[in-house]
Amino acid sequence: VTTRVERLQKQAATSDGVIGLSGGLPATELIPDEDLARGFRAAVRDPDRSWQYGWCEGDAALRRWVAGELRRRGADVEADDVIITAGAQQALALASAELFIPGTRIACGATSYAAALQLFRLRDAEPVAHDSRACPADLAYLMPGVATPTGVDGVPDPGRALDGQRALIVDEAYSALRFDGRVAPPLCARARHRIWHVGTVSKILCPGLRVGWLVPPRARTDAVRARKQAADLQTGSLAQAVLARALERLDLEAHLARLRAAYARRAAILVEALRRHAPYWTFAEPEGGFAVFVETPGHGDDTELLATAVAEGVSFDPGHLFRTHPEADDVLRFRLCFSSAPEADLEEGVRRLAAVWDRVARQAQASLSLRLGSGTRR
Amino acid sequence: VTTRVERLQKQAATSDGVIGLSGGLPATELIPDEDLARGFRAAVRDPDRSWQYGWCEGDAALRRWVAGELRRRGADVEADDVIITAGAQQALALASAELFIPGTRIACGATSYAAALQLFRLRDAEPVAHDSRACPADLAYLMPGVATPTGVDGVPDPGRALDGQRALIVDEAYSALRFDGRVAPPLCARARHRIWHVGTVSKILCPGLRVGWLVPPRARTDAVRARKQAADLQTGSLAQAVLARALERLDLEAHLARLRAAYARRAAILVEALRRHAPYWTFAEPEGGFAVFVETPGHGDDTELLATAVAEGVSFDPGHLFRTHPEADDVLRFRLCFSSAPEADLEEGVRRLAAVWDRVARQAQASLSLRLGSGTRR
Repeated sequence: VTTRVERLQKQAATSDGVIGLSGGLPATELIPDEDLARGFRAAVRDPDRSWQYGWCEGDAALRRWVAGELRRRGADVEADDVIITAGAQQALALASAELFIPGTRIACGATSYAAALQLFRLRDAEPVAHDSRACPADLAYLMPGVATPTGVDGVPDPGRALDGQRALIVDEAYSALRFDGRVAPPLCARARHRIWHVGTVSKILCPGLRVGWLVPPRARTDAVRARKQAADLQTGSLAQAVLARALERLDLEAHLARLRAAYARRAAILVEALRRHAPYWTFAEPEGGFAVFVETPGHGDDTELLATAVAEGVSFDPGHLFRTHPEADDVLRFRLCFSSAPEADLEEGVRRLAAVWDRVARQAQASLSLRLGSGTRR
Repeated sequence: VTTRVERLQKQAATSDGVIGLSGGLPATELIPDEDLARGFRAAVRDPDRSWQYGWCEGDAALRRWVAGELRRRGADVEADDVIITAGAQQALALASAELFIPGTRIACGATSYAAALQLFRLRDAEPVAHDSRACPADLAYLMPGVATPTGVDGVPDPGRALDGQRALIVDEAYSALRFDGRVAPPLCARARHRIWHVGTVSKILCPGLRVGWLVPPRARTDAVRARKQAADLQTGSLAQAVLARALERLDLEAHLARLRAAYARRAAILVEALRRHAPYWTFAEPEGGFAVFVETPGHGDDTELLATAVAEGVSFDPGHLFRTHPEADDVLRFRLCFSSAPEADLEEGVRRLAAVWDRVARQAQASLSLRLGSGTRR
């Protein structure tokens, strides 16, 4: 199914006139391209740093920067504790490789990040929605501050999340993007020895660099480095050097404030459009990030719905990709991203999707009645 | 041990006056930085291609280029068959993940690429040196044209290598760098359905981009794409765009001819120095690539030897890292790279290493005599 979803998303992305509410992309116009280009020009003055092989664990200046940011927020992290990865996804992959044995149960909540769920399943772990003191999972995957796909804080009660002694994979991909600007102390400030801290610049600066990081428990750093070496030797020197140089000049706080304001505005437009055009859909009002996760009162195949929607000029991310137990029901759900489509198109996108959904849901209802009707006649 | 080797290599790389005969790096001055910088300037004119997320399988133009190069050499490869990876190493990792089950025996020859051996072991496979029709391994890992660490053709008899029906991982990282310029048809031209073809630009253009590729058997492309997605979503957009744009203007054949001439000259200097300063060492004369693999008549711990050598101003890659069965003996061997040290330093590097080795080997001999002597007395 993923392959069909991918084909449809590619069709949507390359067709004129399709409003893209899918993908989890930052707005291209909010990527600080001038700062990055300046970073490039500075980086290539040192060809051994930008074009050559580098060390497996990553660029020294970048590791110092990551450690500094975490220390500023209260965590005991040194540059030597940081492994620069190919985005947050590779950080999750390295953590999984170290932590999982076949059958590991990892608590993800009812919805979680699609590519993490895919990774966990591929690694023979079992993502589970339900997790309690009575029946705890072996591990948990947490998104504090802002979770995807819901856009709300994935760890509203840190004390409870930290309860017990199990290892936690903590993904801060969106954590800096709460609309209220609140950035809580990282969980690794409270349980450093069992937290696998994951971060990235993909959502706040630039996804095309593929630069993220993993801060594993100190006792596991060497093992992670060996896995990183086996996985791809190192993260790209050029991307790291460009980023490290760009960060020297960029006013990150001011940039983040701009991002939060811009995405909050887009979120408000999407929410308003949902209330106007799709009053029967439910969703949590987003507190940050790029998207809203919608649940509809309709049932059916969300990939089919995507195919119809793309033909009608709008795309979304099918809900089943984000469900920890997608087989549990066929409720039509979707992630709608307000982050990357032109602001002026957001309402029209929702209007089109609501119209498609209305038609499909009515047809399903009619077909259901017909089938129930024929059933009665037999 | 790897960690100690790494520490020593870092010490060597950051100490003034240490001649670096380790690492497998291309010469920085042979990286076409002007072409790459031009590629950057062209790439960023399309911010959606360079700074944004891209598709999991990679940049379309780059995939067409890879397929075109392989087709030109006689293989049936389309752009859709190519997965762009984070260097050859990730291509090996993806192939391993698809092919291995615990205990898989993979034929690597007596020596092989250190990071591949590390990867294979980490994935619970068993690299084996001996492979015959009577006792075949499950898979084979091959380096045609130029193998590392030996610098000679890893597949002198393609017909024999292709014998049987097993899957083959074929790594062409150095294949374009034979000094005689011979580039044989790729093995996948003859057994496409069971060859996992691996390539990279790291040795011929630029390692800092971390761009390589995997061409799996067609039936496995979707599965590999899913693994690539789980591993890191995609290879960096910026690196791919820079490379794709640089390739539009670069005269690759002329560039390769320059590289071959330059590395052949360096190889000749190293070989000459070895004959002069270390007449008791044996090695195959390199046919291409970046290095010579030396076997000495001495025994001992090659990591200890490295520590002494670095203190005396020269580094090398310890031989045990490249041995498929490193536990089989303690013969002192090393990979000596002629690729990245200044040409003028190559002879002096060998002279220093030979002096260190002479001293250590004499001490070992003396200590051995002493121990044998005391043994006799007891």
